[in-house]
Amino acid sequence: MNNKTLQQLVDKNFNNYKKGKVADYIPALAKVNPKQLGITIYDLKNNDRIQAGDVDVRFAIESMSKVPVLLLAIKDRGIKKVFETINTEPTGFAFNSIMNMEINHRKHPMNPFVNAGAIATTSLINGKDAKEKFERILAFMREICDDPDITLNKEIYQSEAKTGDINRSLAYYMKGNQMIEEVPETLEAYFKQCSVDVTATGMAKLAAVLANKGVAPWSNQRIVSEESATIVKSIMTTAGLYDESGEFSVHVGVPAKSGVGGGLMAAVPNSYGIGVFSPALDNCGNSVAGIQLLKDIVQELDLDIFK
Amino acid sequence: MNNKTLQQLVDKNFNNYKKGKVADYIPALAKVNPKQLGITIYDLKNNDRIQAGDVDVRFAIESMSKVPVLLLAIKDRGIKKVFETINTEPTGFAFNSIMNMEINHRKHPMNPFVNAGAIATTSLINGKDAKEKFERILAFMREICDDPDITLNKEIYQSEAKTGDINRSLAYYMKGNQMIEEVPETLEAYFKQCSVDVTATGMAKLAAVLANKGVAPWSNQRIVSEESATIVKSIMTTAGLYDESGEFSVHVGVPAKSGVGGGLMAAVPNSYGIGVFSPALDNCGNSVAGIQLLKDIVQELDLDIFK
Amino acid sequence: MNNKTLQQLVDKNFNNYKKGKVADYIPALAKVNPKQLGITIYDLKNNDRIQAGDVDVRFAIESMSKVPVLLLAIKDRGIKKVFETINTEPTGFAFNSIMNMEINHRKHPMNPFVNAGAIATTSLINGKDAKEKFERILAFMREICDDPDITLNKEIYQSEAKTGDINRSLAYYMKGNQMIEEVPETLEAYFKQCSVDVTATGMAKLAAVLANKGVAPWSNQRIVSEESATIVKSIMTTAGLYDESGEFSVHVGVPAKSGVGGGLMAAVPNSYGIGVFSPALDNCGNSVAGIQLLKDIVQELDLDIFK
Amino acid sequence: MNNKTLQQLVDKNFNNYKKGKVADYIPALAKVNPKQLGITIYDLKNNDRIQAGDVDVRFAIESMSKVPVLLLAIKDRGIKKVFETINTEPTGFAFNSIMNMEINHRKHPMNPFVNAGAIATTSLINGKDAKEKFERILAFMREICDDPDITLNKEIYQSEAKTGDINRSLAYYMKGNQMIEEVPETLEAYFKQCSVDVTATGMAKLAAVLANKGVAPWSNQRIVSEESATIVKSIMTTAGLYDESGEFSVHVGVPAKSGVGGGLMAAVPNSYGIGVFSPALDNCGNSVAGIQLLKDIVQELDLDIFK
Repeated sequence: MNNKTLQQLVDKNFNNYKKGKVADYIPALAKVNPKQLGITIYDLKNNDRIQAGDVDVRFAIESMSKVPVLLLAIKDRGIKKVFETINTEPTGFAFNSIMNMEINHRKHPMNPFVNAGAIATTSLINGKDAKEKFERILAFMREICDDPDITLNKEIYQSEAKTGDINRSLAYYMKGNQMIEEVPETLEAYFKQCSVDVTATGMAKLAAVLANKGVAPWSNQRIVSEESATIVKSIMTTAGLYDESGEFSVHVGVPAKSGVGGGLMAAVPNSYGIGVFSPALDNCGNSVAGIQLLKDIVQELDLDIFK
Repeated sequence: MNNKTLQQLVDKNFNNYKKGKVADYIPALAKVNPKQLGITIYDLKNNDRIQAGDVDVRFAIESMSKVPVLLLAIKDRGIKKVFETINTEPTGFAFNSIMNMEINHRKHPMNPFVNAGAIATTSLINGKDAKEKFERILAFMREICDDPDITLNKEIYQSEAKTGDINRSLAYYMKGNQMIEEVPETLEAYFKQCSVDVTATGMAKLAAVLANKGVAPWSNQRIVSEESATIVKSIMTTAGLYDESGEFSVHVGVPAKSGVGGGLMAAVPNSYGIGVFSPALDNCGNSVAGIQLLKDIVQELDLDIFK
Repeated sequence: MNNKTLQQLVDKNFNNYKKGKVADYIPALAKVNPKQLGITIYDLKNNDRIQAGDVDVRFAIESMSKVPVLLLAIKDRGIKKVFETINTEPTGFAFNSIMNMEINHRKHPMNPFVNAGAIATTSLINGKDAKEKFERILAFMREICDDPDITLNKEIYQSEAKTGDINRSLAYYMKGNQMIEEVPETLEAYFKQCSVDVTATGMAKLAAVLANKGVAPWSNQRIVSEESATIVKSIMTTAGLYDESGEFSVHVGVPAKSGVGGGLMAAVPNSYGIGVFSPALDNCGNSVAGIQLLKDIVQELDLDIFK
Repeated sequence: MNNKTLQQLVDKNFNNYKKGKVADYIPALAKVNPKQLGITIYDLKNNDRIQAGDVDVRFAIESMSKVPVLLLAIKDRGIKKVFETINTEPTGFAFNSIMNMEINHRKHPMNPFVNAGAIATTSLINGKDAKEKFERILAFMREICDDPDITLNKEIYQSEAKTGDINRSLAYYMKGNQMIEEVPETLEAYFKQCSVDVTATGMAKLAAVLANKGVAPWSNQRIVSEESATIVKSIMTTAGLYDESGEFSVHVGVPAKSGVGGGLMAAVPNSYGIGVFSPALDNCGNSVAGIQLLKDIVQELDLDIFK
């Protein structure tokens, strides 16, 4: 595959945006132009990348932030501590469900990719206060995405903080059940981590690090441990696409994580890191054109890990 | 790895049975000797197998039957029809939960590996009555396990039928919500499919077919389509080990399916089919020694698909 | 109040039927004429009754049967046994919810007026088989309603039995959790008890017995114990009108029980037994015109027990 | 009944405290002496009261505060507004359940006597800030209890505020679902209303106002409307004793409300207001000796409203 054939797949899938709509729970997301689609594929074998469409457009990372923050939490606290705090089971419930912990009598959030688990993950990040926690998260994101221009989008952040009451409810529920200790600082860092602007190319690089067992292919520097890269790809497979994770796993079959900003990344073990951006979402909150395009790529390059 | 090194791993893990206990909801399972452990590994590259321990002991297939019956349903009805009837999302609930469908307002059972979904799968098997359905299932099991000696264990079947009221409840709930049509015949076939006696070697062969894209490596005959083999390995990964599926995926990382008879099978794409038997179970219903042994094998042979 | 003023209240409320619609889950109910409204009030002080409208029209007793069958179960087994089997808590869930027991980890159905509890109540009725159980129920209904013409409506019964899969699901769930023992016989009796044809006058008489501490005011014969009459009026108050029970208690304030056949009965301690019939139902399954008319009566006669 | 016979009933029930234990989720409650039992009965007919035991001991009002605050909310906003905000259905769940709203798809808290509903009720109290809201609540409590010495117990309040994370979770869940608007101010007033010290006599007087259709019997002054007194007695009956409300209604049968401080009040329409105090609680959070003593009183004076 080259840039040209990739562009053909982008063109083929472009109109899928019409089947979805952009997130509208905050104004800063509602005003995003739905007519965008971009993809970057980082090829580990050739240590090269191909790309097509809107690959440099910045968009909110949103739930995809759960991946780098989980990696940083593991660096900070170790695998044992992180997964003593947060379970790794898929939930069957919506990402923001308040009842899944109570109904399943869990003493732990069910996995790091539902909001409760992601908030608990953020609570484990080292740092003396929310500011320092977020600075460390931001620095780590810049490193693992090889993108020094990632910054906080203040408009998104302020909206997230303003409308984030269900996340507050989840956080206090966890505090009241001894799952996390500190709520306002954790939430400040959490809302900020969701509100940074990234690109499809940056997401492809992050995914490439995961695909490459934790080593940045562009520098040959290890960024995270092999074990944490393996674990995170596993959780992406069972819980990466909200309550569409099982269906995605069946029909596409690569470890992936989505965000309501329209981003989607996929880490194909030992071969590719892929970043996609198209902001119109399906009912579950996943990029419509993004999923279709990724499905085509997976078929074209024969990437389904279950095949 | 050879039979001798495999035997060493069996010996190392044998005493793990002490951490679990055999299923006791029916007498025929409660009386099984917990001090058993056997493993067969079918190596696709060498088209050979290695084995150690109790590989020829017969034990009840129980929930592992959900794999061949799903494959047969797809053969009978096609992928589209099967997954219009049954969803493919992990549930976060126990395998026999009656509330997961109601609480999630699902019009479909959540996946083919919880009991509701498995019963719905059985309802799709061709056959004019329960007898014919089960005969077709049995014939298919014998073919895909390359084991003509698989037979119904009548003692197990009678116990399953006698104590199967929660399954009856699930079936009538689905009938009342237009998910299945026929209850008593479906349940008769379902209880029987759970009650056949298999061996670790048979399970390894079934898994080898899945690992080998649907082709029996011992005969080079296609038994199921490549696409159905791929899909089933995906669902094994997200939902194969009851409510321990996510944890298993994180810590072991191969498509697998367990049964309360103490069986465990794993299908490693393009390399190995593995069958394990050890009847002492953990709290989730999975073989304690079986999981530990499988984990050692996966590490030894470097099989984690997320690595 | 006399027949004439009562007729004026009937006339005033008649058109409320337009706000509801008749039950349509079985054809025999769907074809009932919605333009019907009748009320009988049995006045204990004057040992007399006033009535207006369609008081002699026969209609299916449906869920109102839960009252006489609970009374008979107490006669047969005693208060202690009945309420060791069935709890007396309101549920907050729909009458046919399968999940309320599982979610609340109840070892007992939550109360005798949701379907699960009513089925468990029927299971306690003496009788060597379903036929004898139902004959005893029918004889008791005739006695307590002072209506020898109550008979089984076979068309309704056959429809109820045919469509009763959710009730089968509830029954097998209870059997699987040791709450009841025998399913098909219990359900046969249960479906039959729901399918007898009664009149508003018969329901008024049943309610009059409850209002009169268990003694039939027309004969001065005790039919049920004072304690059981008291308990049943209490449960009618907390759980008599499906998931509208609390609202009814707040806005009307008398012990009452409804049925999807359009019946409604109210037992006002020591003063009145009231039977109403109007088949058009609100979303919760309660008679629209019936509730409005009853509310007017309660205000007119100053009957709210909480006032 | 006179003081002496009442004292005999107190003596008879005193040792029931051994079957329970005092609330221990905060130190200030954990240190309360369990060996206390007191009762005041306000007799409307004689406009007199009898009492026995620890009737002047101050204890935390806790959940009993839900009654006067609901009455004040109705005075401030009217019945229509209050019950458009808060439903009146019993829940079947624990008082602090976070899932009952989500699982039942309620847009409103289920009733004013579970924590969610009580917090929403407090949010309706007039006042420009938490301080003014609480001052108005306190003034109203002093008036309706005829007890000018009711004050905030700062130790209890600080503990409640410190440990109140589940209430914070409920409040933010409601805010995120547009059920309430302001969280920290509402919770400050809510935690304070739970932390005032009252006596059994004060509770008896509050209950006497409810029993007397809203008029204080000691002054013949109307304090709340007749309609609001009626409604509140109805909700006390269906939801006043946590998830033991139905059982209490069956076995005791008077409108009542309990608190984890060990208080219990009962309002018997047109006859008695009763206040009881005994701090050892059963598993549902209700006073063990208090319920038993109240049951004896109800039998002795023949007060069951369903009889």
